[in-house]
Amino acid sequence: MMLRTHFVVQLSPELEGKEVTLAGWVHNLRDLGGKKFILLRDKSGIGQIVVDKNSPSFEITKSLSLESVIQVKGRVRADKRAPRGVEVASEEIKVLSYAKAPLPLDVADKVKADIEVRLKERLLDLRRQEMQAVIKIQSSAVKVFRETLYKNDFLEVFTPKIIATGTEGGAQLFPVLYFGKEAFLAQSPQLYKELLAGAVERVFEVAPAWRAEESDTPYHLAEFVSMDVEMAFADYNDVMKIVEEIVVNVLDYVAKNHQVELEILNHRLPSVIRPIKRVTYSEAIEILKSQGIQIKFGDDIGTPESRVLNKVLEQDLYFITDWPAAARPFYTKRREDNPELSESFDLVYRWLELVSGSSRNNTRDVLERELSSRGLNPKSFEFFLKWFDYGMPPHAGFGMGLQRFMLMLTGQQSVKEVSLFPRDKKRLVP
Amino acid sequence: MMLRTHFVVQLSPELEGKEVTLAGWVHNLRDLGGKKFILLRDKSGIGQIVVDKNSPSFEITKSLSLESVIQVKGRVRADKRAPRGVEVASEEIKVLSYAKAPLPLDVADKVKADIEVRLKERLLDLRRQEMQAVIKIQSSAVKVFRETLYKNDFLEVFTPKIIATGTEGGAQLFPVLYFGKEAFLAQSPQLYKELLAGAVERVFEVAPAWRAEESDTPYHLAEFVSMDVEMAFADYNDVMKIVEEIVVNVLDYVAKNHQVELEILNHRLPSVIRPIKRVTYSEAIEILKSQGIQIKFGDDIGTPESRVLNKVLEQDLYFITDWPAAARPFYTKRREDNPELSESFDLVYRWLELVSGSSRNNTRDVLERELSSRGLNPKSFEFFLKWFDYGMPPHAGFGMGLQRFMLMLTGQQSVKEVSLFPRDKKRLVP
Repeated sequence: MMLRTHFVVQLSPELEGKEVTLAGWVHNLRDLGGKKFILLRDKSGIGQIVVDKNSPSFEITKSLSLESVIQVKGRVRADKRAPRGVEVASEEIKVLSYAKAPLPLDVADKVKADIEVRLKERLLDLRRQEMQAVIKIQSSAVKVFRETLYKNDFLEVFTPKIIATGTEGGAQLFPVLYFGKEAFLAQSPQLYKELLAGAVERVFEVAPAWRAEESDTPYHLAEFVSMDVEMAFADYNDVMKIVEEIVVNVLDYVAKNHQVELEILNHRLPSVIRPIKRVTYSEAIEILKSQGIQIKFGDDIGTPESRVLNKVLEQDLYFITDWPAAARPFYTKRREDNPELSESFDLVYRWLELVSGSSRNNTRDVLERELSSRGLNPKSFEFFLKWFDYGMPPHAGFGMGLQRFMLMLTGQQSVKEVSLFPRDKKRLVP
Repeated sequence: MMLRTHFVVQLSPELEGKEVTLAGWVHNLRDLGGKKFILLRDKSGIGQIVVDKNSPSFEITKSLSLESVIQVKGRVRADKRAPRGVEVASEEIKVLSYAKAPLPLDVADKVKADIEVRLKERLLDLRRQEMQAVIKIQSSAVKVFRETLYKNDFLEVFTPKIIATGTEGGAQLFPVLYFGKEAFLAQSPQLYKELLAGAVERVFEVAPAWRAEESDTPYHLAEFVSMDVEMAFADYNDVMKIVEEIVVNVLDYVAKNHQVELEILNHRLPSVIRPIKRVTYSEAIEILKSQGIQIKFGDDIGTPESRVLNKVLEQDLYFITDWPAAARPFYTKRREDNPELSESFDLVYRWLELVSGSSRNNTRDVLERELSSRGLNPKSFEFFLKWFDYGMPPHAGFGMGLQRFMLMLTGQQSVKEVSLFPRDKKRLVP
């Protein structure tokens, strides 16, 4: 019982005189000398309906409100002033759902409402052209992420989200009451994806992950989508190549297929030259010192420092590699030639960390030592350590946060804007 | 630093005399008149290594244990008795990770260990050829599910998993402590996908969902992967077509691309003729009565009844449509011509419900009435109902459980077998 014969984007002067049925939302209403104009929005775009005074649908048009859902039967006629050079002369209008007026948020408004209002009135906000563009680009980004991994022979896996122990200790975990026992929501699929690399070698997962973030920043969510990759018989250099391939493929795809959406968002994608620039952590520290920044080996490279690197390197995307081992999680492998450093990397977009990855430790004794040196109890990780007695290959991997990646692809300012229904300390509804 | 030049499946007589580097797990070891044979397993399959007495790698081979991870350099030579007609004469073996002996589970064993042992020793279990086949088929199934939806112009979305209210009331929810407040894990993305259909029309999601199932059955998990679809301006007949297209595409793809895996699993896929057989609930009740089953309108059609239908209909896959409205969730639309019935369907594989779907209610007053009649408080659903005041199109959708779908694709007997790390009442580790 499909309620339409055409999407508005399919209307064209070639259909002149043809009867079509459209369906969608009343995006705008105008009254011009007795004639009424409806801008009808469907998933494909916005089209123009004309309701002449003598049309049987004229009366019902008077009762329409913005965002009401209607079905329109009518004939296509060419009109240079209309979108795509055509309009539809309405013969019959059926209201499928009336919308209350006034609306708490103007869907057609080009001026963005306050983010708090937008998140409260999220469904109306998601109907705005900008948010529709974000949703379309996001769907494509994840699609191309997966396609790149399929091409490299990775398998998609699903790891458990209710877990007994946190990946990196107990901080920032959400407790779950699991059949009377205390459990937690997974902060990342880290340990499980490593185990799976020890069974099927190349795996990826796109799934929710949770951090009980107390702070309210534009870059953190309590619930986010984590895109994770793990690869056996490989090291951090191998997986950096995969990262690079993913980022380049996604940027290419979005540039080619989402020109309309990028224009709506008024966003220019970063240009990337392969190979993506690599600087070591130690080089980055030297660059920062040379710019007069007070920093020493071992310090974190935070947002202010990354802003300087972005400027000096003249790169929108760059890897910072070989971080101090002590600053990375326990599963990160140290460099053999210099155990102070690790086989690790971050991919940075301007000043925002998009990806974090490394070669992993694959022997029990090293893992136990690294856990202990971080004040973590190896006994709590026995469900993980156990398998390292049964033949674990060298492996490497990375994780990227989808919502941060989306900031690069859409030019939005906060991960809350690109999360459909964001979760943070004060937000659990809608 | 890729640790291999070839996967074992790439070995062929054309490589005769060529030096190759392989890497993988010691799948089997044999000693034959001084010569040693290693069956080396990597993600592509199993290949044969020969270690001659005078090879420099002969000594180290003595120390090898099953499931140890090794790198092998050697020359390819043709041998009709070896897999793929070739073996590799080892020149150098490097042990990357020693495995303890004996192992708690025999990876090479064709005889399946008890399911409890397999789940406890899951990583070893996942290395078994059968489970590798399951993982490969699963990755493909989800891939083809998504590809079918992309082709039909659906967008992938990500809905929140920490929620304030259960989809169908408070039963079977896992409570989460969310910044000091009580929240829950989503049983399904139902309400959120409906809202998104009210913004971008066609959406799908593949994500974890949770049910605090007290009972231990082969068809229930506390955490499963839910594959969800929602479509605006459509009814249950439209989405049944999408279901059909997905099922047929996945079956075709698996048949064409996973012959090897199906043989390992000794599984024959069901044959499906389009359109998939449809019987109404009322017809099904009549059929069951005619078979001497004690059943009346309003009763559930459970596993024993479905076994009878499967036999009478002579179909491995069939839809049961138009269920009694009272037996379906509050968002299910009643038939206009007979409000006792609903515009709903289940897709059944033999006697197992794989998919459940319906046309949805899209007006606030009906939703409130349906909630109340089920003893649910409309006030608890205000975050959802609110949007029906702002123009909600008619819509329809369905959900399918990945693990149940996998039973059809792999012939496994329990959803616990096809879940990589299953979660149930007694299982939280590994």
